[in-house]
Amino acid sequence: METFRVHILGCSSAMPTLKHHPACQVLNVRDKLFMIDCGEGAQTQLRRYGINFSRISAIFLSHLHGDHVFGLPGLISTFSMLGRTQSLHIYAPDDLGSVLGPWLDFFCPGLEFDVVCHQVNPATHSIVYEDRSLSVSTLPLSHRIACCGYRFDEKPLLPHIRRDMIDYLHIPTYAIQGIKEGAGWIDGEGKEWPSEALTRPAAPPRSYAYCSDTQYLPGLAALVKEVSLLYHEATFASTEALRARQTCHSTAAQAAQVARDAHARRLLIGHFSARYTDETPLLDEAKAVFPDTLLANEGLALDIE
Amino acid sequence: METFRVHILGCSSAMPTLKHHPACQVLNVRDKLFMIDCGEGAQTQLRRYGINFSRISAIFLSHLHGDHVFGLPGLISTFSMLGRTQSLHIYAPDDLGSVLGPWLDFFCPGLEFDVVCHQVNPATHSIVYEDRSLSVSTLPLSHRIACCGYRFDEKPLLPHIRRDMIDYLHIPTYAIQGIKEGAGWIDGEGKEWPSEALTRPAAPPRSYAYCSDTQYLPGLAALVKEVSLLYHEATFASTEALRARQTCHSTAAQAAQVARDAHARRLLIGHFSARYTDETPLLDEAKAVFPDTLLANEGLALDIE
Repeated sequence: METFRVHILGCSSAMPTLKHHPACQVLNVRDKLFMIDCGEGAQTQLRRYGINFSRISAIFLSHLHGDHVFGLPGLISTFSMLGRTQSLHIYAPDDLGSVLGPWLDFFCPGLEFDVVCHQVNPATHSIVYEDRSLSVSTLPLSHRIACCGYRFDEKPLLPHIRRDMIDYLHIPTYAIQGIKEGAGWIDGEGKEWPSEALTRPAAPPRSYAYCSDTQYLPGLAALVKEVSLLYHEATFASTEALRARQTCHSTAAQAAQVARDAHARRLLIGHFSARYTDETPLLDEAKAVFPDTLLANEGLALDIE
Repeated sequence: METFRVHILGCSSAMPTLKHHPACQVLNVRDKLFMIDCGEGAQTQLRRYGINFSRISAIFLSHLHGDHVFGLPGLISTFSMLGRTQSLHIYAPDDLGSVLGPWLDFFCPGLEFDVVCHQVNPATHSIVYEDRSLSVSTLPLSHRIACCGYRFDEKPLLPHIRRDMIDYLHIPTYAIQGIKEGAGWIDGEGKEWPSEALTRPAAPPRSYAYCSDTQYLPGLAALVKEVSLLYHEATFASTEALRARQTCHSTAAQAAQVARDAHARRLLIGHFSARYTDETPLLDEAKAVFPDTLLANEGLALDIE
C-alpha cells in the first residue's frame, strides 16, 4: 500500500508548553511531504522525528497567527544551509509574501531556491494544489482572522491487473496499461472481456482533512464528508464552551459532532489549551459523541486507511 | 551574596541539533534578567529551566543572523499573552526596528507594551545600558555582518558596616549610611575613625563578557581584561582553523588565548558546530591554553564569582 500518513509535530494552542509544541504536521503522500502549519520549532521537530527535510515540497498554512507561522524563518534558513534548490510553495489565506518577503531578504539573502507564496481564498472550498497523486482543497473556517482548513484527497489508483487472467488469455504486456485504464480485450475466439473481468479494484482513495483553528461550524461536515481521517481542533472541553465561542475555537464535543455528521472514518483532536495537563477529559468528551476518536500528540505517526 | 548568574539556554551554531539549541542566554543580576541573543525556541527554553518571563527587562543581540534572532517573535507574542505591560528594550548592532516592526504590527497587533529597539555601534567599546547595579558596554567583534559582544559590569557595592565597631563607639543608626559611603566618625574623645576602620570591604564587583560570533581578535583581550567569566565562541577545533577563518568564527584554542591574554578568571566556550557530537576535544584544546575552561550546555546555570 502506498504511503498516506500524517505525522504530528505540534498540537498545542497559542501558548506553547513543555508538553506540546505549536501547530505543525507533515502529511506523507507516497513519500512526498506536505507540511501543514509551521509553529516555532518546526525544524527541530522534523529532526527529532527523523523526517527528511528535502522531501518537503509545500507548506499549507491555516492562518497567519504566530503560533502557526513562526517556525518558517528558521526552517527556510535551514533549507538554505542544507543546499535546497527546489522551489518551496507556501499556501496561506492572506498575503504572506508581503510580510515574509522582507524577513527573508534581510535574514536569508542569496537564497538558492524560490519561496513562492500563494494566497488562497479562505471563503471558498476549491482546489489549490494538484499533482499526479493528490489534490488539496481549501475548507472555509471561522476564526478571528482569515482562516481555512485543507482537505487532502488521494487520486484514485488504477485497478490491479489479474495475473491469472493475463496468463489464461495470453494478453501481451503492451496491452496491460490500457486494460488498467478501462479498455477491454478480445480473445482469439472473438469474445470480449471487459476491464473489470481482468482487474481487481484498487483500494479506495484516502483523504485527510485539517480543520484548525475554528469555532464550531455545523456546515463543515458536508465538506469533509466521509473523510478517512479528520483532524479537528479541540482547544477546550465543553465546560469552557463560552470561552471557546469568545475566542473562535471549538470544544472536543463540537469536533466530534463534525466527525459524526461527516461520517468520517476516524477523528484526531488537537490544538489543546495549555490549561489541560491531561487531555483525557477532552478525549472522553469526544468519544461520547464519536467513538473512533484519537488524541494528537507530538511524535504520533498515523497511517490513514 | 547578591545574584550574578548566567543561564545557558542555547549554545549551538547556525544549524540547530537535537543536542543544542540556537544561541540564547539569560544573565541574572540581582534578580533582574537580561537575555543575550534569542535563537528560535528561546521561550520554550525559558519555560524548561523555570526562568520567570516577567523579570526579563532587556535583550542584547550580538548580530542579526537568524540563529540569534528567530526566537523574538514567539517570545514577544508570549509576553503579550502573559499580560506584559513593561517596555521591552532590545539592543542590536543594526536597525532591528525596521525589520522587526512590520512583523510585530502584523502578528502582534495591539501589544500592550512598547518594544524599543536601540541600535548600538558595534565598532566602539562604549556603555549602552546602565542601572543602579549594572553597566553594559559593547565589545567590537569581527564577523560576516555587524556584530558586537557585550560586557556586563556589576557596579561596586558599598562596604559592609562593622557591627562590633558600631557597638563599641555607640554610633547612631542615622550615621551608618554615610560611613558606608566613606565618611569618618569622631568619637566622644575627639578621636577620628576613618570609614575603613568601621567597615569591611564588599566583595569586588563581578563581570561577564559575551563574545559571539567572531573570528579570533587578539585585541579583544584588552577589552575583557580580568573579567570574572568570559563566554567566547568556539565553533571549531583547531583542525578546522581554515574553515573558522573563512566563516569568521573562532577555534577553541583561540577562545582560550583571549581568556589567557585577558587574565580572565574563567572561560566558558560555546556556539559549537553541529559536526561535534562530543565537545570534549574542544574542551581539551582550550584547557591546554587556559585551564579554567568550561563547556557551555543547555541548562547550565553558573554563578559568576
